[in-house]
Amino acid sequence: MKISTQIAEFDEPLHLESGRILPNFKLAYETYGELNSDKSNVIVVCHALTGSHHAAGRYDGDVKPGWWDAMIGDGKAIDTTKFFVICVNIISSPFGSTSPLDIDKTRNSQWRLRFPVVVISDVVNAQMRLFSRLGIKHAHAVIGGSLGGMQALCYAIEHPKFSDNIVILASTYATSPWAIAFNKIAIHGILNDPEFKNGNYDENEVKSKEMLGLVLGRMAGHVSFLSPESMKRKFGRNYVATDGLYELGGRFEVDRYLEYNGNNFAKRFDPLCYLYIAKMMNIFDCTRHFEDLKDAMSRIKANLTLISFTGDVLFPPQLMEKMHQTMLDLGRSSQSNYIQIESDYGHDAFLVETEKFDFHIKRALECKRTSKKN
Amino acid sequence: MKISTQIAEFDEPLHLESGRILPNFKLAYETYGELNSDKSNVIVVCHALTGSHHAAGRYDGDVKPGWWDAMIGDGKAIDTTKFFVICVNIISSPFGSTSPLDIDKTRNSQWRLRFPVVVISDVVNAQMRLFSRLGIKHAHAVIGGSLGGMQALCYAIEHPKFSDNIVILASTYATSPWAIAFNKIAIHGILNDPEFKNGNYDENEVKSKEMLGLVLGRMAGHVSFLSPESMKRKFGRNYVATDGLYELGGRFEVDRYLEYNGNNFAKRFDPLCYLYIAKMMNIFDCTRHFEDLKDAMSRIKANLTLISFTGDVLFPPQLMEKMHQTMLDLGRSSQSNYIQIESDYGHDAFLVETEKFDFHIKRALECKRTSKKN
Repeated sequence: MKISTQIAEFDEPLHLESGRILPNFKLAYETYGELNSDKSNVIVVCHALTGSHHAAGRYDGDVKPGWWDAMIGDGKAIDTTKFFVICVNIISSPFGSTSPLDIDKTRNSQWRLRFPVVVISDVVNAQMRLFSRLGIKHAHAVIGGSLGGMQALCYAIEHPKFSDNIVILASTYATSPWAIAFNKIAIHGILNDPEFKNGNYDENEVKSKEMLGLVLGRMAGHVSFLSPESMKRKFGRNYVATDGLYELGGRFEVDRYLEYNGNNFAKRFDPLCYLYIAKMMNIFDCTRHFEDLKDAMSRIKANLTLISFTGDVLFPPQLMEKMHQTMLDLGRSSQSNYIQIESDYGHDAFLVETEKFDFHIKRALECKRTSKKN
Repeated sequence: MKISTQIAEFDEPLHLESGRILPNFKLAYETYGELNSDKSNVIVVCHALTGSHHAAGRYDGDVKPGWWDAMIGDGKAIDTTKFFVICVNIISSPFGSTSPLDIDKTRNSQWRLRFPVVVISDVVNAQMRLFSRLGIKHAHAVIGGSLGGMQALCYAIEHPKFSDNIVILASTYATSPWAIAFNKIAIHGILNDPEFKNGNYDENEVKSKEMLGLVLGRMAGHVSFLSPESMKRKFGRNYVATDGLYELGGRFEVDRYLEYNGNNFAKRFDPLCYLYIAKMMNIFDCTRHFEDLKDAMSRIKANLTLISFTGDVLFPPQLMEKMHQTMLDLGRSSQSNYIQIESDYGHDAFLVETEKFDFHIKRALECKRTSKKN
């Protein structure tokens, strides 16, 4: 599958939930498959915190394909011989859409810490502008895991006519204090690292230096992505063969894993962007503009497919069970399908163990809308 | 209860498990209650990672009492009208026992990073020297939670004749990769913080500067001490009243809690000591010198009381259940008592919710040894 990134520039303001305004913005995105003549085969895939719009396929020379390549492609669960799949980089992310590193045209300098806090609803509003420009008024499905699942839920509640089907994996209706606490380590680490220089670091230099606050924050992230069981299976108490058990700097295999991932992440991801996206995740609460979860979810017209993973300690199953229960309480059982996947991969399961749930997604994509459109 | 710290100096070597030798050492300790004439009323209480020998009572002018004051005192579960309680500061800790900040007499300079890695067995061996000096050959009970529980288990396995009763709370037989991963954030943070200066920081200066690596490591620690449920109950998604939701630096209550505890900890605890004790915890595996857990636990002669807490994500109940099951497999059911306490306080429950289990400890202290002494 040959793919390439496209950039859509919008020379028009994006009014944000905070009351602040982005005077202009751009969105990076990729598409897979062909848009049919009546534009009825659109599937929107939403990426997670540190993901990108590169969801499938390989760029020329790439060793690793896009992050959900196992799911998206010809004959795969999200079948690109049938569907036109689009994945948009979220605003605030460093992979091509507008971010704190872009130029604020009103001042002719980078936004940096003056960049406004962007929330999930803003991200989705911006994506709706792109779809409108592409002539897409309607989607067959919106699918996302983790922060991508928050976007999918936002589509369901705030744009109820947009998509027939909504598939949410390993996510929540509101970020829990437990998840906020894990993010705190990164946020506090970045803001207080001397290399952050109050947001005025040199972008390349900061990566080459592997900012400690970002490294430690990402390590905390990886702890939350795995589970006690997955760590036990993956690493046990194995010690790095070259290190002495009684050396102060000696490492267990799990130490080496966190070190590798923490350092690697700091080499490739931008600290300001991480700050803004972690904040976006923390703020997420789909009930904010509604009375409660029941009131918020009563807006939903799409078929909901909720997939949770037993080993997920970041967004444990009971959060998504509660969403399903709320649909039942609303008398919408025919509209909600809750699936719990046995997994000890932790939160990462939605990226790693696709073979355990891809058929559920395939089946969800065969559904038509059951409730009446307004 | 009037209390004061005592220091015992040992001008004799302590041979460590690593093969290294501490040429001399000292131990800080406190005692509560009176030693009876036949020295048969001794209870050893072991402290956790960042705890100290100050387990009960108040120093003159203290606002807060010792860390287990709710448990230890006249008429309390560990009744000082009956028992003579002793709590010894572990070697490597900054509260008075030998630590990396002490003078290596062979060089006449502070140990710093030349300090040897000390393990739980070494800590216990040193304490046995103190008891010997005090004429104590036998204890009625050894009790400890978390890292203190590891010490208690070590007494049970490696000094099986020493104590009639062993009470272990919120602990494990071997530190899990999940716990090691949480410790990694602190260890990596301290070792890589520029303020660490390869261990040659000024002790007062480093505290006044609130070393970022230590702050973030302690935040990670606090995440592991609480549980998703306890965070939900304690903080929910409440936002700090003075902070704006859409401000990048705006904080949730849970953020403020972690910030307060992280910064406070860095003001009072020493980074080198933290490194060494975290390493001590990581290395702990009571089976290391035995074939397996069954072989290790077959050494135990004491009555075992194992108390776990349902919300403990750091050392979850199944770890202690496994210890109990091992005793059952050994045909020692009369010697092992496993109690699971319902709690959503997380790992901290053994410090916080004493009213939920103090009667179990009181009852355990009424037991005599059931198995035959050699």
